[in-house]
Amino acid sequence: MLKFYYAPRTCALASHIALEEAGAKYDTVRLDFGQDEQRKSDYLKVNPKGRVPALATDKGILTETPAILAFIAQSFPAANLAPLDDPFAFARVQAFTSYLCATVHVAHAHRRRASRWADDPAAIEAMQKKVPQSVGAVYALIEDGMLAGPWVMGETYTICDPYLFTVSGWLEGDGVDLSKLPRVMEHRKRVSERPAVKRAIAQESGVKA
Amino acid sequence: MLKFYYAPRTCALASHIALEEAGAKYDTVRLDFGQDEQRKSDYLKVNPKGRVPALATDKGILTETPAILAFIAQSFPAANLAPLDDPFAFARVQAFTSYLCATVHVAHAHRRRASRWADDPAAIEAMQKKVPQSVGAVYALIEDGMLAGPWVMGETYTICDPYLFTVSGWLEGDGVDLSKLPRVMEHRKRVSERPAVKRAIAQESGVKA
Repeated sequence: MLKFYYAPRTCALASHIALEEAGAKYDTVRLDFGQDEQRKSDYLKVNPKGRVPALATDKGILTETPAILAFIAQSFPAANLAPLDDPFAFARVQAFTSYLCATVHVAHAHRRRASRWADDPAAIEAMQKKVPQSVGAVYALIEDGMLAGPWVMGETYTICDPYLFTVSGWLEGDGVDLSKLPRVMEHRKRVSERPAVKRAIAQESGVKA
Repeated sequence: MLKFYYAPRTCALASHIALEEAGAKYDTVRLDFGQDEQRKSDYLKVNPKGRVPALATDKGILTETPAILAFIAQSFPAANLAPLDDPFAFARVQAFTSYLCATVHVAHAHRRRASRWADDPAAIEAMQKKVPQSVGAVYALIEDGMLAGPWVMGETYTICDPYLFTVSGWLEGDGVDLSKLPRVMEHRKRVSERPAVKRAIAQESGVKA
């Protein structure tokens, strides 16, 4: 049985949705970031990085959203969450998830996690101040080219979609001008209407779907 | 024919080595970062992100090191650069490449690319000042757990190895205390001795291997 470690309002939602889309059977463990549970010894045994998500499988523990998403797609091929038989198409999916992880999420993280990269309060404030611009710039590339529509990769829903849906849910908090991202916002709405997405969100909210 | 876009002394070296390990036939295009060629219109048609590496294939262009590495492994299965038939083992490889991309490379980038995340010169200086500590911290997790040895995943060389070799080549410049990373340094030496690695480095240096 899979066991999924997450905290609400984090990037873990992407993998949570993918598990629902896949029809996977899994248990969940919710971490309270307010109590810093992700940095306590019990959880550091699961994921020494002190981050979410983590996915415990019968073979061991997986971390990193792009890796977990690809694992779910490969483990539940009937759900058709990635083009598994075409290395080029699969790599295009992975290039998108990598961009969300290493560029989009990172730009966003300079708002609330800036202390990872500087200690001086004025520097932290300077990073926070640039977030609307830096996050806006990395989304402009998605808006203008990467998002084929109606889904990220075109006609077929893939693991890219719940991940974009998850991180684009942070745009308002990051102070980005949403009027410049109509296609991203339409995509967010389109994904939000899927039953699997509603189930994952309801589960994280502690509400029955 | 594959066409590989790179610049010397960048993360592109990881994919370059993987192409050599795979025995791939490919052309190379060298970009001069000193001339900012990666941000000029010719290259932005190849990769609108203005970054390297990029790999042009007969189906289209790929970007993002983790995606390119997985593509090379899947396209040249005989080279055995990733455990392609085991979704869990493949995901472990991908979790490592994702960590290098989204955490290790990002920590490093705060030294010379800090202006991505703040404009104030004092803030940029504060980020640069923390690099020895922040990069050191993300390598401590590699040293103490992720690097199984002799290769990253254990007995089998994978796409993780040229990528760790590439980014660990930046440790001295980042001012990290190397004495705390003996296993990482041994790994770097071990990888450096492979013929494919020597060939890729020689090609980037403009020297015949």
